[in-house]
Amino acid sequence: MNTKGNGIEFISGGVVAAKGFRATGIHAGIRKNKTKKDLALIMADKPVAAAAVYTRNLVKGAPLTVTAEHLRNGYAQAIICNSGNANTCNADGIEIAEATCRILADAAGIAASDVIVASTGVIGQPLSIEPFRKGIPILVEALGADSTGANEAIMTTDTVTKEVAVKFTLGGKECHIGGIAKGSGMIHPDMATMLVFVTTDAAITPEILSEIVRKDVVTSFNMVSVDGDTSTNDMLAVMASGEAGNAEITEFNAEAENFAEAFGVVTRALCRKIAADGEGATKLIECKVSGALNDETARVVAKSVITSSLLKTAMFGADANWGRVLCAIGYAGTDTDINKVGVVFRSEAGDVEVCKDGHGVDFSEELAKKVLTEKEIVIDVILGDGNGEAVAWGCDLTYEYVKINGDYRT
Amino acid sequence: MNTKGNGIEFISGGVVAAKGFRATGIHAGIRKNKTKKDLALIMADKPVAAAAVYTRNLVKGAPLTVTAEHLRNGYAQAIICNSGNANTCNADGIEIAEATCRILADAAGIAASDVIVASTGVIGQPLSIEPFRKGIPILVEALGADSTGANEAIMTTDTVTKEVAVKFTLGGKECHIGGIAKGSGMIHPDMATMLVFVTTDAAITPEILSEIVRKDVVTSFNMVSVDGDTSTNDMLAVMASGEAGNAEITEFNAEAENFAEAFGVVTRALCRKIAADGEGATKLIECKVSGALNDETARVVAKSVITSSLLKTAMFGADANWGRVLCAIGYAGTDTDINKVGVVFRSEAGDVEVCKDGHGVDFSEELAKKVLTEKEIVIDVILGDGNGEAVAWGCDLTYEYVKINGDYRT
Repeated sequence: MNTKGNGIEFISGGVVAAKGFRATGIHAGIRKNKTKKDLALIMADKPVAAAAVYTRNLVKGAPLTVTAEHLRNGYAQAIICNSGNANTCNADGIEIAEATCRILADAAGIAASDVIVASTGVIGQPLSIEPFRKGIPILVEALGADSTGANEAIMTTDTVTKEVAVKFTLGGKECHIGGIAKGSGMIHPDMATMLVFVTTDAAITPEILSEIVRKDVVTSFNMVSVDGDTSTNDMLAVMASGEAGNAEITEFNAEAENFAEAFGVVTRALCRKIAADGEGATKLIECKVSGALNDETARVVAKSVITSSLLKTAMFGADANWGRVLCAIGYAGTDTDINKVGVVFRSEAGDVEVCKDGHGVDFSEELAKKVLTEKEIVIDVILGDGNGEAVAWGCDLTYEYVKINGDYRT
Repeated sequence: MNTKGNGIEFISGGVVAAKGFRATGIHAGIRKNKTKKDLALIMADKPVAAAAVYTRNLVKGAPLTVTAEHLRNGYAQAIICNSGNANTCNADGIEIAEATCRILADAAGIAASDVIVASTGVIGQPLSIEPFRKGIPILVEALGADSTGANEAIMTTDTVTKEVAVKFTLGGKECHIGGIAKGSGMIHPDMATMLVFVTTDAAITPEILSEIVRKDVVTSFNMVSVDGDTSTNDMLAVMASGEAGNAEITEFNAEAENFAEAFGVVTRALCRKIAADGEGATKLIECKVSGALNDETARVVAKSVITSSLLKTAMFGADANWGRVLCAIGYAGTDTDINKVGVVFRSEAGDVEVCKDGHGVDFSEELAKKVLTEKEIVIDVILGDGNGEAVAWGCDLTYEYVKINGDYRT
């Protein structure tokens, strides 16, 4: 059974696992390929507490600007997201994003200022409002318990849908948190993340929700890297309906901690799914750093390791080239005593220690090959500088990544 | 004819173009493959002024530590370099590097403290001294006007040798500067560079030589990136024999400037060769940034663009996906007004403007394809923030890069 501490249990349902939300996705004609859904909607029954974090890229998609404006009061009722076009670097980008919100507001009988709008796809290509005009009324009609449809509609080069949900209790009331996410290239979030939409029925104020989200991304989505490229359209948006009936969380008490823990279980599960489905990836690479000077140093080291192209190709080739791990630690720009570094490769096939005190140790190449041929690899980096810890998630670098990105637009 | 300003003219000869130097390379048995040379020697007739810069990676190859110690007095007589093993992260690394110097000193009748020692290859594999014991006497015997042999011996995954030489005049005397270099992966220098060895017959003090080298790398080798990985063994070493007969350069006068200019012509030519022969590369990508707040900002932007995996794969696919250029500018972490950014792709096939004032402009996809199918692409980034300029050199990211690095050790 999929259980976590504090009675947190994995369940199905994605963004409709929480009470008070409906969702769906359709093909609205933003993409040429009619078999691919391209417009997603997640709708709350009423305006609810909401929070979001965004990319730190100076180039920001127009939808992010519009969403930030709409979330200033801490409330939202709907998330609308198209794939196939990022609506970024377009002269009329803001206009299009605002028009999208208005059309949805009219069709669903809600306020345009309660709409969170997001886009993902090619940068710098004009986005026509026509598919939205035609599609949104159909989208609103189709709303239901359809997390997968919404998930499919936000996918770009993703090969699988990514949804997670948990149930847990707050003050004796059963609560739910569920999320959907899309990757899978241009993934190296800074501050926020790729597109992730989360719903919960826990009652919580916008202020506390926002704080929990901001704190969570430091060790969740900001620790994922597929290719070192920080997207222009990254966004994590959360809506909390309060329909679970728990006493509203209005301060950082034990209930807030319980909520944050359950939230973290959802986001970390999504992180792993996003990394494992990185463009062209054949395996999930998790780098665990311990013994660092502090947690921040551990994060920088972990991210440097999973971002290294050389390490990523070695993982693709199941080659225990641990020198590349040391190399990436060395150029991370941190205060690290290289002569105390240890490295262990781990997977379901076993553990193999390859480096101790900064020097190579004898190991079985045969066992190493076996360990690294698995689908999920842990690179355990043990430093000797303090008690700082971190985990980062990435993937291998493959022919397929090059193929996908060599001709993405056409 | 290959001429530059101030009478600087390209000539042949590499590291033996300058008077007072001999060189060669042999297969000494460090590598298993007997058809691949693995030990290079460059020798001056007497101890001469010398300078070097090294990687900033915290993990430093043992040879760098030994070389830095030997260069403390500003003089050297020989550069010995093996490929096939980096002699890094080995418990006995320093011992092996020092033994190499002693063996060469005995065989050539020079001082061990006048030897610059370098290694390149796999990290963390024991390096036996035996091939050096057997090979060095043969190497010393073979010394002659053989720049190419030395160049071949330092190659790892390089597909072509990289040598450049120029002649120019200082105070009426004909002087020469020549260099050899190896790439071609783990190339993203910080402070120093891959392996580059330069000789000159200009007379110049170690202090002025060292200053010129340190200043030059900021805009030459530090602006090259193949894969974002900063090697543990990067080194640029220069020896100046003084045999050209010019009045020794002892201060930063006009002659020093002339020397620095000629030196820069050699290093920039080597930069282009290293980038063009990046692992798996099919084309040289040059990013020229102008209009930045200052030169440092321009360098950060230029390097961010040529380092982007997404941009590199797009270049491989000859896909004018300029949004990825904007994206890489946006996450460079600089003070840049995105609404003033212009981008032009240039090559021998023509120019195509793709972005102006931060937004896309209509362009011919047919022409863009033609422009990007050439072997040398210039990405011209025009900012509107000031007068800062920079050039960075990189290459495309291809299937071949993944193949080369997926199983490098075996």
